Amino acid sequence: MTDKDILAQQVVARMMQTDYFSQWMGVQVLDVAEGYSKIQITLRKEMLNGFGIAHGGVTFALADSAFAFACNSDGKITVALDVSISFPKAGKEGDILTAEAKQVNKTNKTGLYLIEVKNQRNELVALFKGTCFKTEKPLF
Amino acid sequence: MTDKDILAQQVVARMMQTDYFSQWMGVQVLDVAEGYSKIQITLRKEMLNGFGIAHGGVTFALADSAFAFACNSDGKITVALDVSISFPKAGKEGDILTAEAKQVNKTNKTGLYLIEVKNQRNELVALFKGTCFKTEKPLF
Amino acid sequence: MTDKDILAQQVVARMMQTDYFSQWMGVQVLDVAEGYSKIQITLRKEMLNGFGIAHGGVTFALADSAFAFACNSDGKITVALDVSISFPKAGKEGDILTAEAKQVNKTNKTGLYLIEVKNQRNELVALFKGTCFKTEKPLF
Amino acid sequence: MTDKDILAQQVVARMMQTDYFSQWMGVQVLDVAEGYSKIQITLRKEMLNGFGIAHGGVTFALADSAFAFACNSDGKITVALDVSISFPKAGKEGDILTAEAKQVNKTNKTGLYLIEVKNQRNELVALFKGTCFKTEKPLF
Repeated sequence: MTDKDILAQQVVARMMQTDYFSQWMGVQVLDVAEGYSKIQITLRKEMLNGFGIAHGGVTFALADSAFAFACNSDGKITVALDVSISFPKAGKEGDILTAEAKQVNKTNKTGLYLIEVKNQRNELVALFKGTCFKTEKPLF
Repeated sequence: MTDKDILAQQVVARMMQTDYFSQWMGVQVLDVAEGYSKIQITLRKEMLNGFGIAHGGVTFALADSAFAFACNSDGKITVALDVSISFPKAGKEGDILTAEAKQVNKTNKTGLYLIEVKNQRNELVALFKGTCFKTEKPLF
Repeated sequence: MTDKDILAQQVVARMMQTDYFSQWMGVQVLDVAEGYSKIQITLRKEMLNGFGIAHGGVTFALADSAFAFACNSDGKITVALDVSISFPKAGKEGDILTAEAKQVNKTNKTGLYLIEVKNQRNELVALFKGTCFKTEKPLF
Repeated sequence: MTDKDILAQQVVARMMQTDYFSQWMGVQVLDVAEGYSKIQITLRKEMLNGFGIAHGGVTFALADSAFAFACNSDGKITVALDVSISFPKAGKEGDILTAEAKQVNKTNKTGLYLIEVKNQRNELVALFKGTCFKTEKPLF
């Protein structure tokens, strides 16, 4: 594990402390490294929409947290600018959803990430492409 | 008010009954018509992320509920296929966010909607463009 | 007409001089102001795809030129970062397509624009949402 | 090579015959299989924009052709519904751009594809996520 990966883990631990919505979702951080994160939730009844499937906002939020953890991993505050998400498959109550965020590109000020959300059968539930903007403000 | 608008209101009332996540967000339905909806939430502490601003997933979810209400308003089950969202401004605790969904285009099987999320100062917090797919299943 | 609008027109005139692809498309600049542009093309046979309708790349390119003209109108070089486009209706040979770009939001470094592409019957052919990144380099 | 792959190649050969814009771009088809395609162009001066780099519309068009070839490969006419594209790196005159389209998901009526556009140094120039809609009309 490099120094950058250790920093990445400290960043995510710090972010999670006050990320009340990720806490509400029951986010478990499975893995973090520079420009990378993997997190998980279990879909509860209160996360469903009127059709009895996962509300798109919850699936998005899981991917968005993974995105935030990956793109802030260098310790400079970075915010989501623009995101596109596709929903190939519905999530159901009890499903265990895992979001894995990978850095596709990085410049001084912007980053591009791809996040896959899969269920416990390894089926793709959502594909999220996100562009972020890096401020100069340190997170700590 | 046309018969189609009355149907639209019945559809949204029915959807809200079991839309547990919209209930958790405290969604208030302000207006519904065919291909249209306007809903509102107040940002609570548990909706924030690690930077003390609205979690992108909550802002997305508000817009996504407005989208779902608008594109299901004809009573046939319709699901989100693909969404793009931009975040021009951060939401803060206590902000009152209003999402207004308007139909841009509709074919037999697909629809295109634009949803604006604004705060109590009428500032644009998010711009959401959504494509949905209409099944043949009736909602009732 | 303000000084900013005059600058906007000078910027677009300069950009068009070496924008060989917009020249190939036969782009006519109908209107330019700060954060705004309106341009037009006529669909030629060589712009069609294998289904005899406008190639998505040409429709995109028209909107993208309108986007570039609008977001560079302050004279600082600005590039497209992320774009989402929906295609509600196909363009046909001989159609006159007009793209109108409007600024939705602007910060120091980024901008958000919405571009509508319509045909001669005022039908929506494409809806384009674009996020751009502003460098500090002057265009002149 | 399966029967489905042979069909895919016949489909693309047929599409290219009347895809005048892909012909104008000088598209070379490198590889085709069911739900997959890989194509290439060389950036010419007339494909540049006012900043002397590849016009976003040309980069998009290359990816869009790869997308069309991949999602029509089963012989039923399929059209692009919604696309999101990010531009991590500018293309330059003389660059050889390769677009590779891969199927991420497929249902009866819709498909989700990811297309990477890379230059001759294997650098990512664009990342394209596309959703398509399948009609029942046969291509032949």
